[in-house]
Amino acid sequence: MHLNITTIYETDDPRLRNYHNIREKDLVGRQHQFIAEGKVTLSALLHSKEFSALSLLIVIERLPGLIPLLKETQPTCPIYCVPQKVMDNIAGFHVHRGVLGIGKRKTLLSLQNFLQDLPEKALILVLCGISNHDNMGAIFRNAAAFASNGIIVDKTSCDPLYRKSIRVSAGATLKIPYTQGADINNIITALHDVDFHLYALSPSSPCTLKQAKITKRTALILGTEGDGLPSHVLQKSDTLRIPMAHGFDSLNVATASGIALAHFSDSYKLY
Amino acid sequence: MHLNITTIYETDDPRLRNYHNIREKDLVGRQHQFIAEGKVTLSALLHSKEFSALSLLIVIERLPGLIPLLKETQPTCPIYCVPQKVMDNIAGFHVHRGVLGIGKRKTLLSLQNFLQDLPEKALILVLCGISNHDNMGAIFRNAAAFASNGIIVDKTSCDPLYRKSIRVSAGATLKIPYTQGADINNIITALHDVDFHLYALSPSSPCTLKQAKITKRTALILGTEGDGLPSHVLQKSDTLRIPMAHGFDSLNVATASGIALAHFSDSYKLY
Repeated sequence: MHLNITTIYETDDPRLRNYHNIREKDLVGRQHQFIAEGKVTLSALLHSKEFSALSLLIVIERLPGLIPLLKETQPTCPIYCVPQKVMDNIAGFHVHRGVLGIGKRKTLLSLQNFLQDLPEKALILVLCGISNHDNMGAIFRNAAAFASNGIIVDKTSCDPLYRKSIRVSAGATLKIPYTQGADINNIITALHDVDFHLYALSPSSPCTLKQAKITKRTALILGTEGDGLPSHVLQKSDTLRIPMAHGFDSLNVATASGIALAHFSDSYKLY
Repeated sequence: MHLNITTIYETDDPRLRNYHNIREKDLVGRQHQFIAEGKVTLSALLHSKEFSALSLLIVIERLPGLIPLLKETQPTCPIYCVPQKVMDNIAGFHVHRGVLGIGKRKTLLSLQNFLQDLPEKALILVLCGISNHDNMGAIFRNAAAFASNGIIVDKTSCDPLYRKSIRVSAGATLKIPYTQGADINNIITALHDVDFHLYALSPSSPCTLKQAKITKRTALILGTEGDGLPSHVLQKSDTLRIPMAHGFDSLNVATASGIALAHFSDSYKLY
């Protein structure tokens, strides 16, 4: 095994430039690059076929614990080892996990290619206007936990590769197939064309989750908690609600996704 | 109606002392005081019988929108109105909701009193070692959404009245009856004494959520995601797991609480 490991003791070493002030800057949008934090996320990155690691930044003391993962996945990118103090100075905060990586998406699946890759029996999510990075990450985590076949992120939603989304997802944003950037109307049309039954979660629906018909292909549409889904989306899909106490506003959208996925994936016998 | 409204233009006015740097300091532990942020949380505070408002701090432009709530609840505490800039200077960050309040718990229910107040048919949560404030808030929010009868927070869990927990809970920490501070062993003994059936969520359980027996009184025990529940807790309760994909670690504990509560509250017909 050849690993490309370099030890660096200077905060201002130019090779570490891309790691500076990662809390403030978001690498996404610059050639599909992103920051992976912690061992779980790093493992997802190094195992992925859709993403590659451009470099790793590891606190010296953490290297031994990562050797099994590095042996298994054999990354060819530079691996920079630094003292904890240098890591913290570079990042701009205390990186207690001691492990960072810069990843890059190889290609973004187009909506058409994403749909073509789906199996005959499929359960997917459609995210419309999900703008909170924690919720985005949590929804991906739930999708992985319940073996969803993929996620379509519309153009009004935030980026799943934002640093915090990746972390909250426990690496799931690097595992679950997804496509992003299309308009919700085009998404709905494309889904109808390939025989998806569309269900939109909406607190005011007359139908409860348990009353949903289980068809071969289900797309579950989720919107923001505040405004909910636009009326033209609700009109083009069947609606479902999660029964809950009267007088309480609504569930967090990520929690709602977990409850709905638990129900559907159980019905689909996905595992 | 008499409202005690004062307009203040000086950041260093001594009456606003308790609002300084609220991001850094946590009022909890100091005579059961806490910070409520935003209209939803303020409404929960002003409607509560267990908590009282010591003072409110409102951006001048936000006051008209709050008058209906203030008319309805008639708080007697001082209401300080300030320009947005003064609010931001005092708080140490941009308070975009423009509404803060300092609340105080009147009394903390003892474990015995909490149990005495429960109805004959009851669904409650027991939190053991929940140390993340977001998860704490999200669990309370789910408990409210699914009409749980109350929550027991053990002594190794964090405080539900931490600022961020209250905010994430959408005010539910000020609505749901709870008690905190007891040792988990004492909690389990006390629950057995008043005929609760104890279920602990554990990913390695042989029984799934749907296989749970529905008895008159159910206590659902939740632990941290990383370490899970201590073995002596698992031994003293029946365990349940939420079926999920192989190879995926586990759900976020708050999401797990939502899925389990959705199942039990539906079985209990709580609404």
